[in-house]
Amino acid sequence: MVIYNGTIITVNSDFDIIKDGFVGIKNGKFAQIGKFTDDFTVPTAEEVIDAEGGIIMPGLVNTHTHLPMTLFRGLADDLPLFQWLHEYIFPAEQKYIQAETVRYGTLLGCVEMILGGTTTCCDGYFFADEIAKAVYDSGMRAILGQGVIDFPAPGVPDPKENIQVVLKFAEKWQNVSPLIVPSIFCHSPYTCSRQTLKKAKDAADSKAMLFQIHVAETKNEWDRIYSEHQTTPIKYLDQIGILDPNTLLVHTIWVDDEDIALIARRGAKISVTTESEMKLASGIAPIPDFLRCGISVGLGTDGCASNNDLDLFREMDSTAKLHKVNTLNPTVLDAPSVLKMATLEGAKAIGLEKDIGSLEVGKQADLIIIDTDKPHLVPMYNPVSHVIYAAVGSDVRDVMVAGKMIVRNKNLLTLDIQEILARVTRISKNIRI
Amino acid sequence: MVIYNGTIITVNSDFDIIKDGFVGIKNGKFAQIGKFTDDFTVPTAEEVIDAEGGIIMPGLVNTHTHLPMTLFRGLADDLPLFQWLHEYIFPAEQKYIQAETVRYGTLLGCVEMILGGTTTCCDGYFFADEIAKAVYDSGMRAILGQGVIDFPAPGVPDPKENIQVVLKFAEKWQNVSPLIVPSIFCHSPYTCSRQTLKKAKDAADSKAMLFQIHVAETKNEWDRIYSEHQTTPIKYLDQIGILDPNTLLVHTIWVDDEDIALIARRGAKISVTTESEMKLASGIAPIPDFLRCGISVGLGTDGCASNNDLDLFREMDSTAKLHKVNTLNPTVLDAPSVLKMATLEGAKAIGLEKDIGSLEVGKQADLIIIDTDKPHLVPMYNPVSHVIYAAVGSDVRDVMVAGKMIVRNKNLLTLDIQEILARVTRISKNIRI
Repeated sequence: MVIYNGTIITVNSDFDIIKDGFVGIKNGKFAQIGKFTDDFTVPTAEEVIDAEGGIIMPGLVNTHTHLPMTLFRGLADDLPLFQWLHEYIFPAEQKYIQAETVRYGTLLGCVEMILGGTTTCCDGYFFADEIAKAVYDSGMRAILGQGVIDFPAPGVPDPKENIQVVLKFAEKWQNVSPLIVPSIFCHSPYTCSRQTLKKAKDAADSKAMLFQIHVAETKNEWDRIYSEHQTTPIKYLDQIGILDPNTLLVHTIWVDDEDIALIARRGAKISVTTESEMKLASGIAPIPDFLRCGISVGLGTDGCASNNDLDLFREMDSTAKLHKVNTLNPTVLDAPSVLKMATLEGAKAIGLEKDIGSLEVGKQADLIIIDTDKPHLVPMYNPVSHVIYAAVGSDVRDVMVAGKMIVRNKNLLTLDIQEILARVTRISKNIRI
Repeated sequence: MVIYNGTIITVNSDFDIIKDGFVGIKNGKFAQIGKFTDDFTVPTAEEVIDAEGGIIMPGLVNTHTHLPMTLFRGLADDLPLFQWLHEYIFPAEQKYIQAETVRYGTLLGCVEMILGGTTTCCDGYFFADEIAKAVYDSGMRAILGQGVIDFPAPGVPDPKENIQVVLKFAEKWQNVSPLIVPSIFCHSPYTCSRQTLKKAKDAADSKAMLFQIHVAETKNEWDRIYSEHQTTPIKYLDQIGILDPNTLLVHTIWVDDEDIALIARRGAKISVTTESEMKLASGIAPIPDFLRCGISVGLGTDGCASNNDLDLFREMDSTAKLHKVNTLNPTVLDAPSVLKMATLEGAKAIGLEKDIGSLEVGKQADLIIIDTDKPHLVPMYNPVSHVIYAAVGSDVRDVMVAGKMIVRNKNLLTLDIQEILARVTRISKNIRI
């Protein structure tokens, strides 16, 4: 397959931008990427796609989601965190999260992400087996973490069974499809005991899985960990042996210079969910410091209960702008740095950088085409500026995962959107808190 | 005309939300707003529009734009303010801002705003006569300020002629159309002398016009005014007699409690351009304090050179989230408060609250319909939450100004978009800095 007549943002190590470029795809991988010169003839490929002057770039990587929570989009906003969690989100999960609702919440999340140019997500929730089936049906790529927490959880009423459920999920899905990668999602250092954290990390290591954990999210969490363990949340995790290159720390807001240096030394990765952290008033993760220390930082949208969308374009824009105003320095987190966080650095954060995150020969053919023939994307002096500061998810025209088109001219080819919207609407009508 | 079958967000004094509502329009004004009950029969109106379950709400009010600068969208990002202005923006203006480019830059800005649900803007620039002609052709409502600055400016090489040009513009446009309201845009206290500021305010008052001014935008400006006049920028303007209910202060970031109390006492209004202020790293305007003191605060996008879009939905989302994280309080600037800033309070800020800003019988029929049958807007528990935290400009389906539909099913009825995009693209190809 050949895609031509677009401006290619490669996100390769030289951050090459190729005007009038083309991309050749073979066996699900990039076989050729180059400039489409005057004497270029459109090759006889099985399929030829004209990008019509748009932007061709890597599919976006969303490093933190809770897919079934798409069901709770806008259920409760503008509340103190404790009240939001205990009066709305936890009761809603207890009452309404079941296999069927998980399936449709997940499908809705996948539809929104795919149509908005996200080709890979890294999710953490319960009912991961149901989530995996739904994501598989959608055609997108995902790392899916089954949850571990010291409380009765959706689908796992007895916390003693958490680790077993994770291992069973991993065994079932480790060889089903290269697009679905099992993982473990250990909720946080304040909802899991030291013993649970240790067991969960051992389970992750035994299956060579990514270990995901929320940490240093709020000042309250920091105070609690410090008073219980006389150290910071990051150092506490390190004492248990959790910080290593297979660990993805999520949020990571309340950290000091020693914590950051420790994360860098251990090679652990970070996922920042800017808009959710703004909306919940958790704080501002020091991304410029993380990058200065060489830590891989990915962006995530978090779940729809706290964002309230899964649009990584908006997340990139907010991230670039927030850190400028926070440091009073307009040169901080420039457009290329933020684009990397949503592509190659995000891929590194979840351990998939050999396969995805940039348009390079030999990598998996995950790409998107942005339609730039729109009032808010004209004129175009710099395609990277447009991607960060002007485009939104609805500007994505085509989406390819592993060489297969899953969106063509804004039509999703893998799922029946109207059926999913109708099912979710029906489910939501019963949700009353 | 009748619009029915939608959820109405009235933004009236009770902030009524009417599920299954209808709106009747006569002679360009709202004649009836109510609930569409089971025994409701669609009336025989000249035109009947089915909102198909979407959201019907007031058109958005953008209280600060520089329309022709849409030509410079993404021309230069991520730079220190001084370098951005002096190496990119000012030279681009000197070289490329002429009557024809102003027309097409303005038309492009109008197209983007209208398609994104903005029905009124408050602009400040030069060549206001050309801008007025273009805005008039677009069908949107606008307050248009001709610029005053103590430097040679686009179209006004001799600063001594500034005030005359303003008065001529006002005389020409004050009775052409109720949709076009002339105003004066006095650039700032650091680019206009005390004498110029005084003359400009007198000119504004002589024609009962809104006086717009950038003020207290950067720390650097504050330092400069303080060192030259031994007082804060706000108190300096007050000394000259500028703070009154006909004055719109733009940005208003570097202010202390005394400044805020003074603004409130004088009845002056404020326009905050959150995303532009974030991107330029100017600082964070203390909106929660302004609101506590009873000041009318509107939102603006600022020009496209520093945002880089004119989407007020994204502006609302960023504003709501930024102030939460800035105060570490998730209850600050809740969704209804932010929606008011982009509608009724914005209208108050520019002196149009008797005509627009809410759906109320007797007001001008400026409204928009949002298509909520989209993956990122499902499910819907609370329409106001969706407007602030999930919707974007491209979700707007229909737009009405003064009872006239100017967008129907996403098609702009007043201008030829393809011609405008082609003209702007051609102009932009010559723009090289």
